[in-house]
Amino acid sequence: MSEYQKLSKADAAELQNAGHRLRIDSIISTTAAGSGHPSSCTSAADIMSVLFKKYLRYDVNNPGDAAADRFVLSKGHAAPVLYAAMKEVGHLTEPLTNLRKFTSDLEGHPPTTLPFVDVATGSLGQGLANACGMAWVAKNIDKAPYRVFCMMGDGESAEGSVWEAMQFASHYKLDNLCAIIDVNRLGQSEATALGHEMEIYRARGEAWGMHTLVIDGHDVNAVDKAFHEAEITKGKPTLIIAKTFKGKHMPEQEDRDNWHGKPMSQDFCDKIKKHIEGLMESTDAKITPRAPLQAVENLQFASDVKLSSPPSYEKTDKVATRKAYGTALTKLGDSSDRVIAFDGDTKNSTFSIDFMKKYPERFGECFIAEQLLAGVTIGATCRNRSIAFASTFSAFFSRAADQIRMGAISKTNANFVGSHAGVSIGEDGPSQMALEDLAFFRAIPGSTVFYPSDAVSCERAVEIAANTEGVCFIRTSRPATVNVHANDAQFAAGKAHFVRSGKAAAIFGSGITLHNALEAAETLAKEGIEVSVIDPFTIKPMDVDAVKKAVEETGGKLITVEDHYAFGGLHSAVSEVVCSEGLGAKVKSLAVPGVSRSGKAAELMAAAKIDAAAIVEAVKSF
Amino acid sequence: MSEYQKLSKADAAELQNAGHRLRIDSIISTTAAGSGHPSSCTSAADIMSVLFKKYLRYDVNNPGDAAADRFVLSKGHAAPVLYAAMKEVGHLTEPLTNLRKFTSDLEGHPPTTLPFVDVATGSLGQGLANACGMAWVAKNIDKAPYRVFCMMGDGESAEGSVWEAMQFASHYKLDNLCAIIDVNRLGQSEATALGHEMEIYRARGEAWGMHTLVIDGHDVNAVDKAFHEAEITKGKPTLIIAKTFKGKHMPEQEDRDNWHGKPMSQDFCDKIKKHIEGLMESTDAKITPRAPLQAVENLQFASDVKLSSPPSYEKTDKVATRKAYGTALTKLGDSSDRVIAFDGDTKNSTFSIDFMKKYPERFGECFIAEQLLAGVTIGATCRNRSIAFASTFSAFFSRAADQIRMGAISKTNANFVGSHAGVSIGEDGPSQMALEDLAFFRAIPGSTVFYPSDAVSCERAVEIAANTEGVCFIRTSRPATVNVHANDAQFAAGKAHFVRSGKAAAIFGSGITLHNALEAAETLAKEGIEVSVIDPFTIKPMDVDAVKKAVEETGGKLITVEDHYAFGGLHSAVSEVVCSEGLGAKVKSLAVPGVSRSGKAAELMAAAKIDAAAIVEAVKSF
Repeated sequence: MSEYQKLSKADAAELQNAGHRLRIDSIISTTAAGSGHPSSCTSAADIMSVLFKKYLRYDVNNPGDAAADRFVLSKGHAAPVLYAAMKEVGHLTEPLTNLRKFTSDLEGHPPTTLPFVDVATGSLGQGLANACGMAWVAKNIDKAPYRVFCMMGDGESAEGSVWEAMQFASHYKLDNLCAIIDVNRLGQSEATALGHEMEIYRARGEAWGMHTLVIDGHDVNAVDKAFHEAEITKGKPTLIIAKTFKGKHMPEQEDRDNWHGKPMSQDFCDKIKKHIEGLMESTDAKITPRAPLQAVENLQFASDVKLSSPPSYEKTDKVATRKAYGTALTKLGDSSDRVIAFDGDTKNSTFSIDFMKKYPERFGECFIAEQLLAGVTIGATCRNRSIAFASTFSAFFSRAADQIRMGAISKTNANFVGSHAGVSIGEDGPSQMALEDLAFFRAIPGSTVFYPSDAVSCERAVEIAANTEGVCFIRTSRPATVNVHANDAQFAAGKAHFVRSGKAAAIFGSGITLHNALEAAETLAKEGIEVSVIDPFTIKPMDVDAVKKAVEETGGKLITVEDHYAFGGLHSAVSEVVCSEGLGAKVKSLAVPGVSRSGKAAELMAAAKIDAAAIVEAVKSF
Repeated sequence: MSEYQKLSKADAAELQNAGHRLRIDSIISTTAAGSGHPSSCTSAADIMSVLFKKYLRYDVNNPGDAAADRFVLSKGHAAPVLYAAMKEVGHLTEPLTNLRKFTSDLEGHPPTTLPFVDVATGSLGQGLANACGMAWVAKNIDKAPYRVFCMMGDGESAEGSVWEAMQFASHYKLDNLCAIIDVNRLGQSEATALGHEMEIYRARGEAWGMHTLVIDGHDVNAVDKAFHEAEITKGKPTLIIAKTFKGKHMPEQEDRDNWHGKPMSQDFCDKIKKHIEGLMESTDAKITPRAPLQAVENLQFASDVKLSSPPSYEKTDKVATRKAYGTALTKLGDSSDRVIAFDGDTKNSTFSIDFMKKYPERFGECFIAEQLLAGVTIGATCRNRSIAFASTFSAFFSRAADQIRMGAISKTNANFVGSHAGVSIGEDGPSQMALEDLAFFRAIPGSTVFYPSDAVSCERAVEIAANTEGVCFIRTSRPATVNVHANDAQFAAGKAHFVRSGKAAAIFGSGITLHNALEAAETLAKEGIEVSVIDPFTIKPMDVDAVKKAVEETGGKLITVEDHYAFGGLHSAVSEVVCSEGLGAKVKSLAVPGVSRSGKAAELMAAAKIDAAAIVEAVKSF
């Protein structure tokens, strides 16, 4: 294997012909669709031909099998050339002219409903981090020889996330990863900043610790040699930088601006097809994709991962929920060696460090690069290879909002745990305070949003998240608080707990504000005013029955109090239920009114009017 | 100026002593605060000394003046060393021991309430893009000789956003920009990935087109020489990579792990102070900061920028709101030469290209790097130097969520215009569809969220945004639609328009769904059912009076219909008002229920049940 055998003339002709077939299919399918990106497909066609016919190891009838090499098309708008490749090898039998139709899975950008797609792409610059997560799992968790390939465009290499991923790949010596940049010179609206400056690309790749090869991406012999070199290179990931031309072999479009995302007319399509067919050489060569090297167990989504021991706290213990996260994650890790964790250089604040200390081989450090953190975690959970948790300050998950958005489109099961929620972090000030994270994570389709208020419920949130499909978010707090729930309390997503009951008003609080609400309730009780205090446990789904009960028992006097801005969080969640159900309640909002500042947690909560005093006042104003 | 004069021995001693004073002040202030990052300050102290005493051109009594050189502390957790520097030069007279107190502006991370801070920092890796925006404006809009300095940490150079900014700086040849990386080797939770591998940093800087200097960051002579070289280097931005030690001159902390973000005990503080004082040399040298080279006009926030001509459409014209954005932006540009625009290689889709064609010198291309796009725009608007608009597909602003979050903390007036909202974009599929953008932008404190439904209101939204403080977001649509509003209609934030009136139900719709609602109203009218159709114009603020009127006129039968997910958007906005005001209405939500797919806009809207047929059904179900 390690000695390079130059392609025979016949094989080279066949690979070149296949590249042309991919071109033709990409042009025909986008013409049929009336939209799409044929010119972005034709630049990559020859590389795709060599990769899918000769290098990628997979069963064409079962490309989703765990043993197969993985391929991520980071330049997702070139989806037609991927579909054409899967047709070329005999996997796809559906007509490619179904492209972009409502009734077909051959979508405009690759969807995970196709068995050869692990992550949805189309927001550029994200695929390599996903591929890194897959390659890291292959090496460290599966310990299997399957490899991961990722095809990017040159335009997308302007995204910093690409370089975060290169850093991860070289840091973790992911020699099972091969990245490709299809340098076709042209972006959507003008030429890229670097054009065909191949030596600048080379310098960047090398400075990022990649085994870097610069080649002619239309020369199948050069492509073949590069993939061979990638395969035998140990200790370093490979980056193949391929000089190509956008619209290659489309006579009036090649290397010309203003043809991005434009399908050909039927006339143009027919002419180009004829032109490209004229370039093909006759050959008898047959090239069949290689089979995987070694069987790998396929895994189903795990729904039975348990804490190795139940929560065990004294009623008087003061424990921060971020600390309980570290405890719970470690207990989950005891139960399943598929539980893994990543962090962004905050592990000593989020307490993922507890897990790292016990299971160092199952912990990945992403350093200060949250897009990478999210992307790697999403990649790591693909095909149920792991139950993965990512943690950082909750404010900094906003850095990865696009990755998490795309993760939901990929139907990821990744879990995100954000610490240091709200103004109650105190002196560090607003840059470190998550105050819009509930709004963001609630908006993610299919998400579950946990906001535990004590250590017991936090441990259970972590356990339930591990067993819940879709994006899960757990919001943890910095301050230590007493336990509200008994060690044997039962928790479920969408199931609130009435911590106190009363008829004067019902107060919904989460995290630190549940404690403020309980303090307010004590004060009010001394004056003979009894209120309900409700811990929703999940902000999404919101417990509809609990809201109904609260409305009924109080005659529609509800208060929400949250260490979050006023829009999109707890108040919105309760108001949506009240309005959708037509319950007719008034819902007063106590929330952080604007940008906060440095100060003590108590000072900041008082200034924001989310402390016990403000809650007392709100109850009395009814 | 251009010949380098080595520092005199006396001046070198004075700069070194000043560095030590900054160290001592950083340690004392964090000890007084009981929190903060002294070790991150001490690594940067010598660089700060040379920069603030000798190179930066500013009036110490008026550092916010438009003529002054700008400084961005991207490693915002080192705020105490910045405050110490401003005390050293005589600007700050407040005791530094007020650090992190509720009553002081000496916050844990630099706030823009301080006159020498233009952008709030603390979320790492963002400062350089802000600095790029300032330097771009200095060169292209102010055409003034003030320069921009940005100090980063090595940990934060793992953020891809840093490299996006380097690319912008070298692409636009920002030789008025000097970036510094304080390579102190240690992150928060462990050593950085690169440690003190200075040659790797050098290779990266050079590959990114920076004039790159690697120096000893504790040698004031080396620092001095580097800043001189940066000043005389033309055609390229300079990157100074300084090898330093975290905790420098803190005997038990220097270059040791586990001291990040930990203040010293009073005992330790006293001992270190004594130790550092022992390092100082006696000198009579006095060094006074340099004055600005040239006066620059100070500008107030403009609140009178108008479209050069009013909207002018025929009732039957079908115009996409994204197209109206390009028209309006160009008209604003006619009225003020401070109107500028940036895009992320989507200008031919967002229609910012119309502005670029007329005012190329006021347009900046950020290529495919949305974090950069937002960061540059925020930097460009600092100190009211410009009225800046950033545009890309709305889905891709999620890539810059953290930058926009920090922008709000900086009290930015930047305007964000996101096109291709919702499933109505059609065939490109979910990766390109913004479906959570309203939730995100509503959560931003102080934001205004416009969602115009026709070309007339879109032009006015652009005009109002230009004159509105805080983050403004305008959501535009891909499909062409007819005009709903007359050319002379009046618009204001928080002022809805009743496009039709009826008592059977009130339908709130925006963008494409307003048109669906009008179609439904026509159908219903034929059956004798008259409904109100309301165009809220802004989703934030939501027009409280309009919601009240809708509830009163219909007996509390409201419907919201939005091309957005169900959480955090239009339904939430209306529900919040209904519940906060205790209006007692039922609000049915028609929204996109989950991840969409490729297909025709009409097919996708029907599948999501946000089309006219679904609205008719919802009305009838009351």
